[in-house]
Amino acid sequence: MTNTPFHPGTHLLIDHYDGQHLNDAAQLEAILRAAAKTAGAAVLKTSFHPFPDRAGVTGFVLLAESHISIHTWPEHGFAAIDIFMCGACDPHVAAKYLEQVLAPKRVEITQAKRGAF
Amino acid sequence: MTNTPFHPGTHLLIDHYDGQHLNDAAQLEAILRAAAKTAGAAVLKTSFHPFPDRAGVTGFVLLAESHISIHTWPEHGFAAIDIFMCGACDPHVAAKYLEQVLAPKRVEITQAKRGAF
Repeated sequence: MTNTPFHPGTHLLIDHYDGQHLNDAAQLEAILRAAAKTAGAAVLKTSFHPFPDRAGVTGFVLLAESHISIHTWPEHGFAAIDIFMCGACDPHVAAKYLEQVLAPKRVEITQAKRGAF
Repeated sequence: MTNTPFHPGTHLLIDHYDGQHLNDAAQLEAILRAAAKTAGAAVLKTSFHPFPDRAGVTGFVLLAESHISIHTWPEHGFAAIDIFMCGACDPHVAAKYLEQVLAPKRVEITQAKRGAF
Protein backbone atom coordinates (compact mmCIF):
# COMPACT_ATOMS: atom_id res chain seq x y z
CA MET A 1 0.00 0.00 0.00
CA THR A 2 1.14 3.48 -0.84
CA ASN A 3 -0.19 6.99 -1.25
CA THR A 4 2.22 7.81 -4.06
CA PRO A 5 0.34 9.36 -7.01
CA PHE A 6 -0.38 6.76 -9.66
CA HIS A 7 -1.63 7.23 -13.22
CA PRO A 8 -2.60 3.88 -14.71
CA GLY A 9 -4.12 5.16 -17.91
CA THR A 10 -6.64 7.23 -19.84
CA HIS A 11 -10.39 6.69 -19.80
CA LEU A 12 -12.48 7.99 -22.71
CA LEU A 13 -16.24 8.46 -22.52
CA ILE A 14 -17.51 8.59 -26.10
CA ASP A 15 -21.02 9.53 -27.20
CA HIS A 16 -21.94 8.61 -30.77
CA TYR A 17 -24.99 10.13 -32.43
CA ASP A 18 -26.60 8.43 -35.41
CA GLY A 19 -23.96 5.77 -35.95
CA GLN A 20 -24.32 2.34 -37.55
CA HIS A 21 -24.99 -1.22 -36.32
CA LEU A 22 -26.80 -0.10 -33.15
CA ASN A 23 -28.93 -3.27 -33.10
CA ASP A 24 -26.36 -5.82 -34.25
CA ALA A 25 -24.71 -7.48 -31.25
CA ALA A 26 -22.49 -9.80 -33.31
CA GLN A 27 -21.29 -6.97 -35.50
CA LEU A 28 -20.61 -4.70 -32.51
CA GLU A 29 -18.66 -7.47 -30.80
CA ALA A 30 -16.48 -7.92 -33.89
CA ILE A 31 -15.98 -4.16 -34.19
CA LEU A 32 -15.02 -3.68 -30.54
CA ARG A 33 -12.64 -6.63 -30.73
CA ALA A 34 -11.02 -5.06 -33.76
CA ALA A 35 -10.82 -1.71 -31.99
CA ALA A 36 -8.95 -3.36 -29.11
CA LYS A 37 -6.58 -4.98 -31.59
CA THR A 38 -5.82 -1.69 -33.36
CA ALA A 39 -4.70 -0.27 -30.02
CA GLY A 40 -2.55 -3.32 -29.28
CA ALA A 41 -4.74 -4.48 -26.39
CA ALA A 42 -5.29 -8.13 -25.40
CA VAL A 43 -8.90 -9.34 -25.13
CA LEU A 44 -9.61 -11.50 -22.07
CA LYS A 45 -13.36 -11.89 -22.46
CA THR A 46 -16.35 -10.44 -24.28
CA SER A 47 -20.05 -10.39 -23.52
CA PHE A 48 -22.70 -8.86 -25.80
CA HIS A 49 -26.46 -8.93 -25.30
CA PRO A 50 -29.15 -7.72 -27.69
CA PHE A 51 -32.30 -6.44 -25.99
CA PRO A 52 -35.66 -7.77 -27.22
CA ASP A 53 -37.63 -5.96 -29.92
CA ARG A 54 -34.51 -4.35 -31.40
CA ALA A 55 -34.16 -2.16 -28.33
CA GLY A 56 -30.38 -1.99 -28.55
CA VAL A 57 -27.27 -3.84 -27.45
CA THR A 58 -25.18 -3.83 -24.30
CA GLY A 59 -21.69 -5.23 -24.48
CA PHE A 60 -18.27 -5.34 -22.92
CA VAL A 61 -14.75 -6.29 -23.98
CA LEU A 62 -12.58 -7.04 -20.96
CA LEU A 63 -8.91 -6.38 -21.71
CA ALA A 64 -5.66 -7.19 -19.99
CA GLU A 65 -5.29 -3.40 -20.27
CA SER A 66 -8.79 -2.62 -18.80
CA HIS A 67 -11.92 -2.47 -21.03
CA ILE A 68 -14.13 -1.20 -23.83
CA SER A 69 -17.91 -1.07 -23.42
CA ILE A 70 -20.85 -0.07 -25.58
CA HIS A 71 -24.52 0.49 -24.80
CA THR A 72 -26.88 1.51 -27.60
CA TRP A 73 -30.31 3.14 -27.83
CA PRO A 74 -31.30 2.73 -31.49
CA GLU A 75 -34.57 4.60 -30.98
CA HIS A 76 -32.45 7.66 -30.17
CA GLY A 77 -29.66 6.87 -32.61
CA PHE A 78 -27.34 6.89 -29.61
CA ALA A 79 -24.36 4.81 -28.50
CA ALA A 80 -22.50 5.32 -25.22
CA ILE A 81 -18.98 3.89 -25.50
CA ASP A 82 -16.15 3.92 -23.02
CA ILE A 83 -12.55 2.91 -23.49
CA PHE A 84 -10.14 2.58 -20.58
CA MET A 85 -6.63 1.44 -21.44
CA CYS A 86 -3.47 1.30 -19.39
CA GLY A 87 0.11 0.47 -20.22
CA ALA A 88 1.39 1.27 -23.71
CA CYS A 89 -2.08 1.08 -25.33
CA ASP A 90 -3.59 4.32 -26.62
CA PRO A 91 -7.39 4.48 -26.28
CA HIS A 92 -7.52 7.28 -28.84
CA VAL A 93 -6.41 4.79 -31.50
CA ALA A 94 -9.36 2.53 -30.64
CA ALA A 95 -11.69 5.55 -30.51
CA LYS A 96 -10.65 6.65 -33.98
CA TYR A 97 -11.24 3.14 -35.34
CA LEU A 98 -14.72 3.02 -33.82
CA GLU A 99 -15.53 6.40 -35.31
CA GLN A 100 -14.45 5.22 -38.75
CA VAL A 101 -16.42 1.97 -38.63
CA LEU A 102 -19.56 3.10 -36.80
CA ALA A 103 -19.68 6.36 -38.79
CA PRO A 104 -21.64 8.53 -36.34
CA LYS A 105 -22.80 11.91 -37.57
CA ARG A 106 -21.64 13.52 -34.34
CA VAL A 107 -19.14 12.44 -31.67
CA GLU A 108 -18.43 13.82 -28.22
CA ILE A 109 -15.42 12.56 -26.26
CA THR A 110 -14.66 13.24 -22.61
CA GLN A 111 -11.18 12.27 -21.46
CA ALA A 112 -10.27 11.40 -17.87
CA LYS A 113 -6.80 10.55 -16.60
CA ARG A 114 -7.44 7.92 -13.97
CA GLY A 115 -5.61 8.33 -10.68
CA ALA A 116 -4.42 11.72 -11.86
CA PHE A 117 -3.58 13.51 -8.68
CA MET B 1 -32.47 7.95 -36.11
CA THR B 2 -32.80 11.35 -34.49
CA ASN B 3 -30.71 14.29 -33.39
CA THR B 4 -32.95 15.04 -30.41
CA PRO B 5 -30.87 15.44 -27.25
CA PHE B 6 -30.89 12.25 -25.20
CA HIS B 7 -29.65 11.65 -21.66
CA PRO B 8 -29.56 7.92 -20.93
CA GLY B 9 -27.85 8.07 -17.56
CA THR B 10 -24.97 9.01 -15.32
CA HIS B 11 -21.46 7.60 -15.56
CA LEU B 12 -19.20 7.71 -12.51
CA LEU B 13 -15.43 7.28 -12.69
CA ILE B 14 -14.27 6.34 -9.21
CA ASP B 15 -10.68 6.15 -8.02
CA HIS B 16 -10.10 4.31 -4.74
CA TYR B 17 -6.81 4.67 -2.88
CA ASP B 18 -5.73 2.05 -0.36
CA GLY B 19 -8.95 0.05 -0.32
CA GLN B 20 -9.47 -3.61 0.53
CA HIS B 21 -9.66 -6.89 -1.44
CA LEU B 22 -7.55 -5.62 -4.35
CA ASN B 23 -6.25 -9.11 -5.12
CA ASP B 24 -9.39 -11.15 -4.45
CA ALA B 25 -11.31 -11.70 -7.70
CA ALA B 26 -14.07 -13.79 -6.11
CA GLN B 27 -14.62 -11.27 -3.34
CA LEU B 28 -14.64 -8.34 -5.77
CA GLU B 29 -17.17 -10.13 -7.97
CA ALA B 30 -19.46 -10.67 -4.99
CA ILE B 31 -19.05 -7.04 -3.91
CA LEU B 32 -19.77 -5.60 -7.36
CA ARG B 33 -22.80 -7.87 -7.73
CA ALA B 34 -24.06 -6.63 -4.38
CA ALA B 35 -23.40 -3.02 -5.42
CA ALA B 36 -25.54 -3.52 -8.53
CA LYS B 37 -28.29 -5.01 -6.37
CA THR B 38 -28.28 -2.08 -3.94
CA ALA B 39 -28.94 0.24 -6.89
CA GLY B 40 -31.74 -1.97 -8.20
CA ALA B 41 -29.83 -3.00 -11.32
CA ALA B 42 -30.16 -6.37 -13.07
CA VAL B 43 -26.95 -8.35 -13.67
CA LEU B 44 -26.69 -9.93 -17.15
CA LYS B 45 -23.14 -11.28 -16.93
CA THR B 46 -19.96 -11.03 -14.91
CA SER B 47 -16.33 -11.75 -15.71
CA PHE B 48 -13.45 -11.39 -13.25
CA HIS B 49 -9.80 -12.26 -13.87
CA PRO B 50 -6.96 -12.26 -11.35
CA PHE B 51 -3.55 -11.46 -12.81
CA PRO B 52 -0.64 -13.78 -11.96
CA ASP B 53 1.62 -13.11 -8.99
CA ARG B 54 -1.05 -11.14 -7.13
CA ALA B 55 -0.78 -8.33 -9.67
CA GLY B 56 -4.42 -7.32 -9.32
CA VAL B 57 -7.85 -8.08 -10.71
CA THR B 58 -9.78 -6.90 -13.75
CA GLY B 59 -13.51 -7.45 -13.83
CA PHE B 60 -16.86 -6.27 -15.03
CA VAL B 61 -20.53 -6.64 -14.28
CA LEU B 62 -22.70 -6.19 -17.37
CA LEU B 63 -26.10 -4.83 -16.40
CA ALA B 64 -29.42 -4.44 -18.17
CA GLU B 65 -28.86 -0.82 -17.09
CA SER B 66 -25.25 -0.63 -18.45
CA HIS B 67 -22.23 -1.71 -16.33
CA ILE B 68 -19.86 -1.64 -13.38
CA SER B 69 -16.15 -2.35 -13.85
CA ILE B 70 -13.11 -2.57 -11.61
CA HIS B 71 -9.39 -2.76 -12.34
CA THR B 72 -6.93 -2.94 -9.46
CA TRP B 73 -3.23 -2.28 -8.97
CA PRO B 74 -2.45 -3.67 -5.50
CA GLU B 75 1.19 -2.58 -5.69
CA HIS B 76 -0.10 1.00 -5.78
CA GLY B 77 -3.08 0.42 -3.49
CA PHE B 78 -5.23 1.62 -6.37
CA ALA B 79 -8.60 0.60 -7.81
CA ALA B 80 -10.20 2.22 -10.88
CA ILE B 81 -13.96 1.66 -10.82
CA ASP B 82 -16.63 2.90 -13.16
CA ILE B 83 -20.38 2.72 -12.82
CA PHE B 84 -22.73 3.60 -15.66
CA MET B 85 -26.42 3.19 -14.97
CA CYS B 86 -29.47 4.26 -16.91
CA GLY B 87 -33.16 4.18 -16.19
CA ALA B 88 -34.28 4.50 -12.57
CA CYS B 89 -31.02 3.14 -11.12
CA ASP B 90 -28.80 5.57 -9.22
CA PRO B 91 -25.07 4.87 -9.63
CA HIS B 92 -24.33 6.96 -6.54
CA VAL B 93 -26.07 4.31 -4.42
CA ALA B 94 -23.76 1.63 -5.81
CA ALA B 95 -20.75 3.95 -5.38
CA LYS B 96 -21.59 4.53 -1.73
CA TYR B 97 -21.90 0.78 -1.14
CA LEU B 98 -18.51 0.13 -2.75
CA GLU B 99 -16.96 2.82 -0.60
CA GLN B 100 -18.37 1.25 2.54
CA VAL B 101 -17.26 -2.27 1.69
CA LEU B 102 -13.88 -1.58 0.05
CA ALA B 103 -13.03 1.06 2.68
CA PRO B 104 -10.54 3.15 0.69
CA LYS B 105 -8.62 5.82 2.58
CA ARG B 106 -9.29 8.30 -0.21
CA VAL B 107 -11.89 8.43 -3.00
CA GLU B 108 -12.16 10.64 -6.07
CA ILE B 109 -15.33 10.57 -8.16
CA THR B 110 -15.80 12.17 -11.57
CA GLN B 111 -19.37 12.34 -12.81
CA ALA B 112 -20.39 12.49 -16.46
CA LYS B 113 -23.91 12.80 -17.79
CA ARG B 114 -23.88 10.72 -20.93
CA GLY B 115 -25.45 12.27 -24.00
CA ALA B 116 -25.76 15.52 -22.09
CA PHE B 117 -26.08 18.07 -24.82
